[in-house]
Amino acid sequence: MTELEALADRLRRFAQDRDWEQFHTPKNLAMALAGEVGELLSELQWLTPEETANVMDDPEAAKRLRSELADVTIYLTRLADVLGVDLVDVAHTKLDQSEKRYTVEAYRGSARKAPPLV
Amino acid sequence: MTELEALADRLRRFAQDRDWEQFHTPKNLAMALAGEVGELLSELQWLTPEETANVMDDPEAAKRLRSELADVTIYLTRLADVLGVDLVDVAHTKLDQSEKRYTVEAYRGSARKAPPLV
Amino acid sequence: MTELEALADRLRRFAQDRDWEQFHTPKNLAMALAGEVGELLSELQWLTPEETANVMDDPEAAKRLRSELADVTIYLTRLADVLGVDLVDVAHTKLDQSEKRYTVEAYRGSARKAPPLV
Amino acid sequence: MTELEALADRLRRFAQDRDWEQFHTPKNLAMALAGEVGELLSELQWLTPEETANVMDDPEAAKRLRSELADVTIYLTRLADVLGVDLVDVAHTKLDQSEKRYTVEAYRGSARKAPPLV
Repeated sequence: MTELEALADRLRRFAQDRDWEQFHTPKNLAMALAGEVGELLSELQWLTPEETANVMDDPEAAKRLRSELADVTIYLTRLADVLGVDLVDVAHTKLDQSEKRYTVEAYRGSARKAPPLV
Repeated sequence: MTELEALADRLRRFAQDRDWEQFHTPKNLAMALAGEVGELLSELQWLTPEETANVMDDPEAAKRLRSELADVTIYLTRLADVLGVDLVDVAHTKLDQSEKRYTVEAYRGSARKAPPLV
Repeated sequence: MTELEALADRLRRFAQDRDWEQFHTPKNLAMALAGEVGELLSELQWLTPEETANVMDDPEAAKRLRSELADVTIYLTRLADVLGVDLVDVAHTKLDQSEKRYTVEAYRGSARKAPPLV
Repeated sequence: MTELEALADRLRRFAQDRDWEQFHTPKNLAMALAGEVGELLSELQWLTPEETANVMDDPEAAKRLRSELADVTIYLTRLADVLGVDLVDVAHTKLDQSEKRYTVEAYRGSARKAPPLV
């Protein structure tokens, strides 16, 4: 069992134990995911990009960011479990496409030519 | 190496090969993550919660959802790598807290008493 | 002066008085807007669509929703002011297009044929 | 009738004419709003804050931003109409609080002391 499968299992049991599976529709979980991403943005919104590159040097900010990333990971993992999607598998499939679409030769150094990664 | 570490490695090389690391500040990556979550919401916004529970039965919708989940996973993994955060580790730490905070006895069956999971 | 112009004026003075204009780049304000929309989602995520249709009957929920809608309006108005965009004007221009694109004859009653409104 | 009331009226008729009011629950509209804000973020994510300050000088980028701001305004106005909330009114009420909370004396020049505006 991979580490993400183990996390998904723990989340499924957590929901089952509290009879919360009824609330965990893809629609609701996607909203919860978006809400947590909104909190993540709040931590970074007034900092410059350069300041955010060093944000983990601040212990208080680092603690809040780890907490927000945990929340995002939890809802994303739960959503994928409910939908029956293997997140790492679909990510690699998408990257196979991105590597062909954004060739090193054509895109090196330019973010404006295309959105990086996907 | 875990599957998420391998994915993070691939993403890091992808960015290095295109000289795109300069764009991958936590601020920018968090915005890209939020943008992809927005696209995920768009797939589910007009469906009822019940319809979304069966959304993967529709091959076209399933394909789009896998693609959006891939994009979200990619930016979340890249952001965590840049920040030096182990996503599965922080998720388990958060769940340790949630299991104490939302005891089975007090919260069973109620979503309104507290936001589930985190 | 329209009511949105008056609100934009008040926000501009608020920022000037605190020397906060330096933080109010379009990038930062868009992130703040997204963060506030995330809080709005949090208020509605575990309710059914039907429950959300009556959510203002609950005084506490109504108070929180008015507060979140205020925050969203404030950042959207400030962002538009910084970009020099008249929100109501661009909305009407978009609706001119939507009315032609989603004709009553072709789209009546179906949300799946096209995303409503825009 | 204010300009926002007139816009809300037009949106209500647009939905009524297509029998789309059934889809316009607060839950669905909040998701649609978040999806459009995600598209707005996508326009700004790879630019530096300084570049976004001048983004309207680029006619193509300006056109896309006006279109995204229109979409956000449309869903926010429609959501507020369905909830019976006067956006400008609640924004001024929130600003009354912010002016007391973030006094000019205590907060001048610092974004880190408190989140600006709200």
